Amino acid sequence: MLRFALFGAGRIGQVHAASIAAHPRADLGWVCDPFAAAAGPLAEKYGATATADVDAVLADEAVTAVVIGSSTPTHVDLLTRSVLAGKAVLCEKPIDLDLARVDSCWAQIKDIEHTVMVGFNRRFDPTFKDIRDRVSAGELGRLEQLVITSRDPEPPPAAYLGGSGGLFRDMTIHDFDMARFFLGEVVEVQATGANLIADYIADAGDIDSAVVVLRGAGGALAQITNSRRCSFGYDQRIEAFGATGMLSAANQLPTSVRYYGAERTESAAPYFNFFLERYTPAYRAELDHVITSIEQGSKPSPGFADGRAALALADAANESLRTGRTVTLG
Amino acid sequence: MLRFALFGAGRIGQVHAASIAAHPRADLGWVCDPFAAAAGPLAEKYGATATADVDAVLADEAVTAVVIGSSTPTHVDLLTRSVLAGKAVLCEKPIDLDLARVDSCWAQIKDIEHTVMVGFNRRFDPTFKDIRDRVSAGELGRLEQLVITSRDPEPPPAAYLGGSGGLFRDMTIHDFDMARFFLGEVVEVQATGANLIADYIADAGDIDSAVVVLRGAGGALAQITNSRRCSFGYDQRIEAFGATGMLSAANQLPTSVRYYGAERTESAAPYFNFFLERYTPAYRAELDHVITSIEQGSKPSPGFADGRAALALADAANESLRTGRTVTLG
Amino acid sequence: MLRFALFGAGRIGQVHAASIAAHPRADLGWVCDPFAAAAGPLAEKYGATATADVDAVLADEAVTAVVIGSSTPTHVDLLTRSVLAGKAVLCEKPIDLDLARVDSCWAQIKDIEHTVMVGFNRRFDPTFKDIRDRVSAGELGRLEQLVITSRDPEPPPAAYLGGSGGLFRDMTIHDFDMARFFLGEVVEVQATGANLIADYIADAGDIDSAVVVLRGAGGALAQITNSRRCSFGYDQRIEAFGATGMLSAANQLPTSVRYYGAERTESAAPYFNFFLERYTPAYRAELDHVITSIEQGSKPSPGFADGRAALALADAANESLRTGRTVTLG
Amino acid sequence: MLRFALFGAGRIGQVHAASIAAHPRADLGWVCDPFAAAAGPLAEKYGATATADVDAVLADEAVTAVVIGSSTPTHVDLLTRSVLAGKAVLCEKPIDLDLARVDSCWAQIKDIEHTVMVGFNRRFDPTFKDIRDRVSAGELGRLEQLVITSRDPEPPPAAYLGGSGGLFRDMTIHDFDMARFFLGEVVEVQATGANLIADYIADAGDIDSAVVVLRGAGGALAQITNSRRCSFGYDQRIEAFGATGMLSAANQLPTSVRYYGAERTESAAPYFNFFLERYTPAYRAELDHVITSIEQGSKPSPGFADGRAALALADAANESLRTGRTVTLG
Repeated sequence: MLRFALFGAGRIGQVHAASIAAHPRADLGWVCDPFAAAAGPLAEKYGATATADVDAVLADEAVTAVVIGSSTPTHVDLLTRSVLAGKAVLCEKPIDLDLARVDSCWAQIKDIEHTVMVGFNRRFDPTFKDIRDRVSAGELGRLEQLVITSRDPEPPPAAYLGGSGGLFRDMTIHDFDMARFFLGEVVEVQATGANLIADYIADAGDIDSAVVVLRGAGGALAQITNSRRCSFGYDQRIEAFGATGMLSAANQLPTSVRYYGAERTESAAPYFNFFLERYTPAYRAELDHVITSIEQGSKPSPGFADGRAALALADAANESLRTGRTVTLG
Repeated sequence: MLRFALFGAGRIGQVHAASIAAHPRADLGWVCDPFAAAAGPLAEKYGATATADVDAVLADEAVTAVVIGSSTPTHVDLLTRSVLAGKAVLCEKPIDLDLARVDSCWAQIKDIEHTVMVGFNRRFDPTFKDIRDRVSAGELGRLEQLVITSRDPEPPPAAYLGGSGGLFRDMTIHDFDMARFFLGEVVEVQATGANLIADYIADAGDIDSAVVVLRGAGGALAQITNSRRCSFGYDQRIEAFGATGMLSAANQLPTSVRYYGAERTESAAPYFNFFLERYTPAYRAELDHVITSIEQGSKPSPGFADGRAALALADAANESLRTGRTVTLG
Repeated sequence: MLRFALFGAGRIGQVHAASIAAHPRADLGWVCDPFAAAAGPLAEKYGATATADVDAVLADEAVTAVVIGSSTPTHVDLLTRSVLAGKAVLCEKPIDLDLARVDSCWAQIKDIEHTVMVGFNRRFDPTFKDIRDRVSAGELGRLEQLVITSRDPEPPPAAYLGGSGGLFRDMTIHDFDMARFFLGEVVEVQATGANLIADYIADAGDIDSAVVVLRGAGGALAQITNSRRCSFGYDQRIEAFGATGMLSAANQLPTSVRYYGAERTESAAPYFNFFLERYTPAYRAELDHVITSIEQGSKPSPGFADGRAALALADAANESLRTGRTVTLG
Repeated sequence: MLRFALFGAGRIGQVHAASIAAHPRADLGWVCDPFAAAAGPLAEKYGATATADVDAVLADEAVTAVVIGSSTPTHVDLLTRSVLAGKAVLCEKPIDLDLARVDSCWAQIKDIEHTVMVGFNRRFDPTFKDIRDRVSAGELGRLEQLVITSRDPEPPPAAYLGGSGGLFRDMTIHDFDMARFFLGEVVEVQATGANLIADYIADAGDIDSAVVVLRGAGGALAQITNSRRCSFGYDQRIEAFGATGMLSAANQLPTSVRYYGAERTESAAPYFNFFLERYTPAYRAELDHVITSIEQGSKPSPGFADGRAALALADAANESLRTGRTVTLG
């Protein structure tokens, strides 16, 4: 059994705790959170020890790996200390909101043998992964266009927005990673944004709707459509268009029931409302990947560099938004 | 141009008149109906002559073909006289409600060179025809099961029911023909019926819901599901299940629009409400087939024997319904 | 924790073992099977004790409940002994192939306080359950027609067929239960069968394809379409047709990926191949139901009487098949 | 009957000739084309007179309306002369490739009472029109995002490309009009293009793939995805995303047949290959609209100003493509 410690007992921490508990070759030793009221019950649920003491966790030699699911500002510090303590790390995205801090983090760990994975869970979604695998296998010929639709059900509360880093670094970052998953490196970014949903988002200096167009090193174009609010649930779709065919990922339904009546036909249930339901299998597969990597001594993917690259795309999108110009990347 | 006369200016007569007018190689010479108020406007609309005089129509040498769309009791007489007058005939189903009358009609025309087609329009529906062609071409291997769903939007009025011949001869007769289209001859019939919809149907001695199971000479099983009322429109579907695959015909939609909202997703518009909308292309193709057959001197299909066979299946279904036994056919 | 013992370490036993292990309030104490080579590894996998000794299992007071997943001929004996030993029972279908043995089993347990559930897992499938709940809530008005399509991917081997009890008692029994789930009691059965797939099935005196028509006590008609072989996987569908609408359960797909190319469009992956994949959530929910029933002291459903009733329908279908007549049930 | 003259006997001219012939209140008097080998057969097919003499056509007082389906460079001259001759005009898009010529055309006709419609046929597609009507009726709340996918099956030949005006003025112009149909005026354009398909397109100085992002005066964002080649046929889709729901227009299929087999399930036929099949109902409805407008003395829509506006968007897209900057419109 591979023992994990979890940093952060919030919503995403609970997802990871459940995944660890359900994995046949892993168990949860610690839940570490400054808020005892959060750490306690979660630890108890899975037979772990609750603590607010990071050092105690990292000093426990029985702990092989940590999951960092705490608030974004704490990621760099916890990631660095965990690597220095010899732990394997699965760190939630983003590594940080500030590229300079990400780079200084890297400077501290790059010469140490480490296992660091960044939690871009969507790469492990069975539907998206199947499309990526088939594109990689050449089923569509050359990939020419990638269309990513990504809309959240509800905008975050005002209190969250301030520290979120803005739409591109908070929400689109998943889509930037998905674009990179298909296109490899991105060489051009063009972003358009709008405020259409809620005044408090504009008041916070952020946008709530966006279209981002990317050009991959291989020439393919990708586009990302974002909205902070979607009346029909969590809208998560992809189309990969190639020379000889297209593969699409439709939204997923909790059942296959359809209704037919006088007003409408073939009507399905609402989509999964948010990531906890939609991406449960992806979170499980992500955890399984890091566990298998640790067991086999291989590097998990996506890694630190992928986390940095997605953040760099978010920064480029912000620059394009500000200047109205296409931004070219190194 | 091939000149047609039309017997019957009712709902189905209007369908045929429009098809004739729209065909590039046909025109409509006469509309013959005892009700002048029906014949007149229809004739005027397409530049034809209205009349109640059958003899005048059949004496017109410019008329090559007739369409019989009048009430069922008139079919045999009009068909016989038209054949004797040397006209090609497209006769609406059923030829008659009484198998003995059908046979005596046949006795009168069988030794005359004739062109008689029976109006089982669904054989010409592009979707059903595509499945039939692919089954015939062996795409599914041996055909094993055929599932026909056929539900009308609304039951006919009480006044119509009395002369309808009952569900099997009035409505299911189309499905019996469709079963024969796929299976060839049918050797066994088993029918179950129920009264679930409206008391006046039961009062008329008829059923409103049915399941009929057929066995084809080649061994395949077919089943027909009927209802006289369907809340979501005209329900017309087929599944052909074979050794190596299945082909299905879904209901058809007027547009490809889908709606997504908080209550439901992927919701389509109601289906076509009835046969005039659903089978417009089938009626057009049916007419084109009889015209082409006349032009080429070939026999149109389905012919008189097909009209008789479907009626014989309806009678067998009624017998099975009455006795609770499987009925074996010659 | 509620401790289970499992009788039978075969395919279905493994499903139940996994469900028990995954349930937060259950664990597996024993795996009991005369074949040590099967019991041993399965027990080891879940930290249970392997044995061939039924008495030892039933004597263990720590065991609250048993799952009977052994071969059909052993069910009645194990069920009776387990009830006499005071254990709650989840027994796989069928209780037995012989209605008389089922009744004598009942005679032995009926006066003892017992908790017996029969494993008609499909009642717990989220899709079917959602339709049943909505039908029960009146969303469709009166239920008029129920269409069940149930086809297995591959026929069982000849060796299995001999002891299977025939198509209706082995395979259709699930569909009979599903019909009862929607219709309540069934008053009429009409069955048609055919041999279309494999000679060895006919040689064994069994059919491989069937259509069964049922009439419910409330007047609704149900039809069941069966085949022992389906080229596109496990075909498990339901349509509930009522006065004001229809609800359908389509087959389920492992991903939402669709392919579009020059030869075809909107093409999905193959369906789940068999019950282990298709009904995993149903098996989990079924176990949860029996556990909750035990905890709350309520009667689980479907119970012994449901197991008997489905078998009685299978017998009636066999009689209809033999006589070509509709069979009326008490 | 309203008599039409047709300029241009090529592919699109044939579409219009057929629509005129099929319309119950219109007929075709002239087919005018410098190539007698094209004009002659088309005129003969519909009982019209073939000519190369524009003046003769415009001098015919029996002609009420003209359809301009000739090559783009002739549009302005024919449109101007037709208006001066008092004819109503349905002019194919684009009015011209040069905005200055369009404006000088307008200067010549603006003070004359005229009826001019521009052939943006897609506004009359029943599916797109239904979505537009429902959006206008407020079914989605405020419209926030419009996603237009528009891919042709095959790139045009090199010979055509030279005079096409480039992707944006030749192909995307339809999508610009569709964006205006939903958004009203457009205030910002941002374009990205690529050469991914065929060298001869790049050699001609044109792109073959593009993404264009637009901002409407009301704040909504629209995006257009274009490709000159699509392996699965003519890809024509729209999604209108609003505050309370989404409406989508899927591609359309010639039949509702689906195939299920060991390799794939739910597989549909290829889409319509190109605009003649896909948009037949739209061309018919477009013609009906101009006829009804003439009969009622109302202004048809889209009109001259719409033709100009779509061209102005194409020019803005070209400027954005060249500069890498967002282009703001008046």
